[in-house]
Amino acid sequence: MPELRRDPVIGRWVIISTERGKRPSDFSKEPEPEMGKLCPFCPGNEDKTPPEILAYGNLGRQRNKADWWLRVVPNKFPALQIEGSLNRKGDGMYDKMNGIGAHEVLIETPNHKQEMPDMPDNRIEDILWAYRDRIIDLRRDTRFEYILIFKNKGAAAGASLSHPHSQLIATPMVPVRVRQEMLGGKQYYDYKERCVYCDMIEQELTSNERVVAENDHFVALEPFAPRFPFETWILPKNHDSHFEDLQKPEAFNLSRILKLVMTKIKIALDDPPFNYIIHNSPLKDQPLPYYHWHIEIMPKLSKIAGFEWGTGFYINPTPPEEAAQFLKEAE
Amino acid sequence: MPELRRDPVIGRWVIISTERGKRPSDFSKEPEPEMGKLCPFCPGNEDKTPPEILAYGNLGRQRNKADWWLRVVPNKFPALQIEGSLNRKGDGMYDKMNGIGAHEVLIETPNHKQEMPDMPDNRIEDILWAYRDRIIDLRRDTRFEYILIFKNKGAAAGASLSHPHSQLIATPMVPVRVRQEMLGGKQYYDYKERCVYCDMIEQELTSNERVVAENDHFVALEPFAPRFPFETWILPKNHDSHFEDLQKPEAFNLSRILKLVMTKIKIALDDPPFNYIIHNSPLKDQPLPYYHWHIEIMPKLSKIAGFEWGTGFYINPTPPEEAAQFLKEAE
Repeated sequence: MPELRRDPVIGRWVIISTERGKRPSDFSKEPEPEMGKLCPFCPGNEDKTPPEILAYGNLGRQRNKADWWLRVVPNKFPALQIEGSLNRKGDGMYDKMNGIGAHEVLIETPNHKQEMPDMPDNRIEDILWAYRDRIIDLRRDTRFEYILIFKNKGAAAGASLSHPHSQLIATPMVPVRVRQEMLGGKQYYDYKERCVYCDMIEQELTSNERVVAENDHFVALEPFAPRFPFETWILPKNHDSHFEDLQKPEAFNLSRILKLVMTKIKIALDDPPFNYIIHNSPLKDQPLPYYHWHIEIMPKLSKIAGFEWGTGFYINPTPPEEAAQFLKEAE
Repeated sequence: MPELRRDPVIGRWVIISTERGKRPSDFSKEPEPEMGKLCPFCPGNEDKTPPEILAYGNLGRQRNKADWWLRVVPNKFPALQIEGSLNRKGDGMYDKMNGIGAHEVLIETPNHKQEMPDMPDNRIEDILWAYRDRIIDLRRDTRFEYILIFKNKGAAAGASLSHPHSQLIATPMVPVRVRQEMLGGKQYYDYKERCVYCDMIEQELTSNERVVAENDHFVALEPFAPRFPFETWILPKNHDSHFEDLQKPEAFNLSRILKLVMTKIKIALDDPPFNYIIHNSPLKDQPLPYYHWHIEIMPKLSKIAGFEWGTGFYINPTPPEEAAQFLKEAE
């Protein structure tokens, strides 16, 4: 059973995989992802993953067989385990609990090499819809407080398999990073009685210095204080705190802008490794006037070094105004 | 002039290098550090760095000539600039100020290939003493609130030059990461009236599960909730909030335990890239009962991915108890 442990000073939770127990020799210097190995996410290899939780496929398709175009399965090597109770306990001054949670993999396409820029539009809509489906299903499990949906692409961004996929992790507490964002949004709201993200969108659309693209429902922009070169956020123009409120016309427009941004990043930066993360409200929160869900996309172009770890500051060599210009022009 | 910009939600400051302005094509996929190029940190190349701020060398040595064994110079490509005033201002809803600060490089040895495991003991003492000297000098500049001392070794840890060196950055505000640690320490102190780090040292020395090494003044241990495999902290056994209070006998013992830990990490993990960071109190704070300076060493063995960015959680595949055992046995 993985263990959740809390740093007694910072309050940061860490997942210790007590079962996998990596030894020093297990950290090879540059692991090459699955070269020459069979891909467990390709059609025909459905028995190489745990049984599917959800699949979109042709009518009459058999479960755990081919003929799907999107498939969600439990992670075979989960960071957190679905069975069991939290069993919170102390260890002297320290705090720990069982590593309970859900860890799922969303296989985005049967095509091993088809990333978003090459997908038909409605496939991306399906991916977004599957994110929503999984949140709506998992939030019924009262042990969970938060669901993080994210994508790692490329070994440098932490991906261990190259077949296009996203991941979902449900956690039994609201992560510290999310609490900070909630707190920041709430403080702004308490002072201004407006959503900080709504104000940001208003100012960005007016100045137009950092906007990359927009459509009826969404805007893609380089944030004012980005940690990383070409960090790009996609935000709904209308205030909404919960991603899973997404309706069909919004999913349509989100899929278009996401594909456009992914295509621009691929062209401008020569197909870089990246992470994207859906920043969403905690599961048990009602609609919040002070939080605004959004997607943060972070191309992995620079290394995180001692200064960043020590301060929480970031040094970014590319002003977002210039990054926005480059992305706008990339077609 | 670099610009400091504040994220309006999280309050995180970011340094935007408006002058270096990296274009997309500047991010090559795997930059090799300075292969075949002249090393600006080697003796004889003193004119390739800005003029020195401090050097330890033979008596009668000329400034900015060879014959030194340790040298501190301004960073040629500083993240922050020493001249100017902060000039805090708004930009609509956003906050920014000039990127004022100090950014120095401490060249640890004239020998291009000599890292700490291969240094004579007293050289490491000199490095620690030089850290102290620079803090004591820079804290007289009232614009600065914090000084971060850190070392990046290896390209994967963010080093762009391979000659052994540390860095120092003085910032005009207390970084968010430091404020969190201070706050955590203070909350514990308010509740318990004891230092959280002192309690940690007491519990670790008693249980002895995660201790790697100790001597009269210092203990090296794997923390209870480490973010990374083989993350190792070195703490003074006696309470002290400020690194620069270091006295000669302590510097002696710190140099011994630092060399020992660096040697063990090198052997156990096959000379990995790493960062180390001195966690210290803000410059203007008096001695604090609730904060305890220490060094955090983070071998770079795994990648940070979407989950870590999105939650602030970390997934660590090596329990610290096992890591401590491996390091204890590495000789």
